[in-house]
Amino acid sequence: MAPFFQNSAGRLVPDALAGFARAHADIVTLDPEHGFLTARDAAGSRLVGLVSGGGSGHEPLHSGFVGAGMLDAACPGRVFTSPHNRQVYQASLAVARRGGVLHIVKNYTGDRINFGIAAERLAHRGIPCARVLVDDDVASDSASSGAGPGRRGTGGTVLIEKVLGGAADTGLGLAELESLGSALAARCRTLSVASAAHTSPATGEPAFTLGREETEYGVGIHGERAARTVPAAGLRPLVARMAGELLAELSPAAAGDPLLVLVNGLGGITSLELYGICGELVRVLEEQRVGVARTLVGSFVTALDTRGFSLTLMAADWMTLKYYDAPVRTAALRW
Amino acid sequence: MAPFFQNSAGRLVPDALAGFARAHADIVTLDPEHGFLTARDAAGSRLVGLVSGGGSGHEPLHSGFVGAGMLDAACPGRVFTSPHNRQVYQASLAVARRGGVLHIVKNYTGDRINFGIAAERLAHRGIPCARVLVDDDVASDSASSGAGPGRRGTGGTVLIEKVLGGAADTGLGLAELESLGSALAARCRTLSVASAAHTSPATGEPAFTLGREETEYGVGIHGERAARTVPAAGLRPLVARMAGELLAELSPAAAGDPLLVLVNGLGGITSLELYGICGELVRVLEEQRVGVARTLVGSFVTALDTRGFSLTLMAADWMTLKYYDAPVRTAALRW
Repeated sequence: MAPFFQNSAGRLVPDALAGFARAHADIVTLDPEHGFLTARDAAGSRLVGLVSGGGSGHEPLHSGFVGAGMLDAACPGRVFTSPHNRQVYQASLAVARRGGVLHIVKNYTGDRINFGIAAERLAHRGIPCARVLVDDDVASDSASSGAGPGRRGTGGTVLIEKVLGGAADTGLGLAELESLGSALAARCRTLSVASAAHTSPATGEPAFTLGREETEYGVGIHGERAARTVPAAGLRPLVARMAGELLAELSPAAAGDPLLVLVNGLGGITSLELYGICGELVRVLEEQRVGVARTLVGSFVTALDTRGFSLTLMAADWMTLKYYDAPVRTAALRW
Repeated sequence: MAPFFQNSAGRLVPDALAGFARAHADIVTLDPEHGFLTARDAAGSRLVGLVSGGGSGHEPLHSGFVGAGMLDAACPGRVFTSPHNRQVYQASLAVARRGGVLHIVKNYTGDRINFGIAAERLAHRGIPCARVLVDDDVASDSASSGAGPGRRGTGGTVLIEKVLGGAADTGLGLAELESLGSALAARCRTLSVASAAHTSPATGEPAFTLGREETEYGVGIHGERAARTVPAAGLRPLVARMAGELLAELSPAAAGDPLLVLVNGLGGITSLELYGICGELVRVLEEQRVGVARTLVGSFVTALDTRGFSLTLMAADWMTLKYYDAPVRTAALRW
């Protein structure tokens, strides 16, 4: 089962969860029966509990973002598979506050269904529940043709979870958080590229193969092949092209606000490359007189060991930046 | 030049440095002329400046550890190549304090030579300078045969830099820090394995190839092939074997003290695997009634995109843990 270091493909996620809970016992608690993580150090000022989740294989998303200032709970599914609605329901019960619970859901069919069923069960129990749908991936925009579920949720999720965490800590109610989250999602767009696919934990084989001089432009975070396989360009033109498409998607609604920029590794890329990419992106944006308010660089929303990166731009007003800058203490994000 | 995302192999490191300095302008300052990074927020209580450095390709080591509570300066060389002694000299001049400057040097011939020349030049200027040599990699132990430079420095470097940072902030002098660092290095051992080699930024080819059912046991952080290529065992026996060898290397000198444990990714491994490995390691240690005081899990000392991991054990008395737990604010480590 090379090249994965695992006891078996079936044990990869449960073993990781147990190890994660052990390594970060000061931050999270694992419910081994229902399979979710909760924050040990929940802020007393919150009126609403924040719950996210999704398929595993995107770590540190979401487990690494459970903790003070960010998520109250995360529900990991199997690799690239939605969590079961029971996980979501139990996690929501565990962290619901007086104002209810907010689900932060990436736009995939399975996630929508399972979070939806959990929300209905919560409603039956009289627990207020609302949903923020994250759909930032411009490459998967099939809504206009009516052929699919629309843009998927990807890198922008970490920014939205951080900002909503900061907002929840100020005591906002459920409707306010839902409204804020939807506005954030509307001002957030992501584009991903890869030079090599992830390896399957089950077979040890790559999900697809690319030629040495090819780049998968608009790759999905489950190893979905992109609509376009393009010749590998130099880094500068590649980043300029991606930035141009993202800016076009954001305008005119987001014009005028400075950007929160995420340069995100998909798993198998080096830190040297990510910072080089960040430099190019900032240069392009500044050339176009677009303000860069914050930059976050690292591997936050991965696709197993995919050799690639994503760029996320979020138009951010001063209140968004205030929530983003608020203190956070999770396994993967601290300031 | 697939699969690297870079303008050119020659631009990989300088572009990354510029992007890093831009992304973390609140934490570090880049000296573009001499090629080193310094902390913006140096603690006023330090008597001694801490300087490290080494070949690039091991990020976040060392640049990601510059900042309050850890390094005062870092000198990155080209990929897998020692920094020039001029870099080390200029960085040391920039951050030397009343008590001088301490060099934290991984045990490679080039690094020893260049830090050594810089130390001589500092002595000429009347600046007190001492060195801590990190030599934790048990797989490269050639000292007993007299055939090489002895154990190389690898994963343990991050722990030693953190503990020395915490110690320096309490106002320890140069001799005390040198003595502490040497004692830490003597109680710290690392072992690394890989299931796939790193890719060369220059050629786009892997440094070596392994069969699907092979593990490189004792791989070096520059893609040095190990002394042993072994059949890929299950994860549990692999971790048990590594832990057993590390514990044997640490005893009897370190008997009785609990362990500071680092589970470190070499670049191309998933977070799921690292936490599964952490769980196995903790289980093995607890079965042997070895106390685990702290666990650190992540990719801190990498070898470009090598698909592998290292385990580091450091025997830690209460004072070491106090320094380790002290606040830190760098790009890659914060608490």
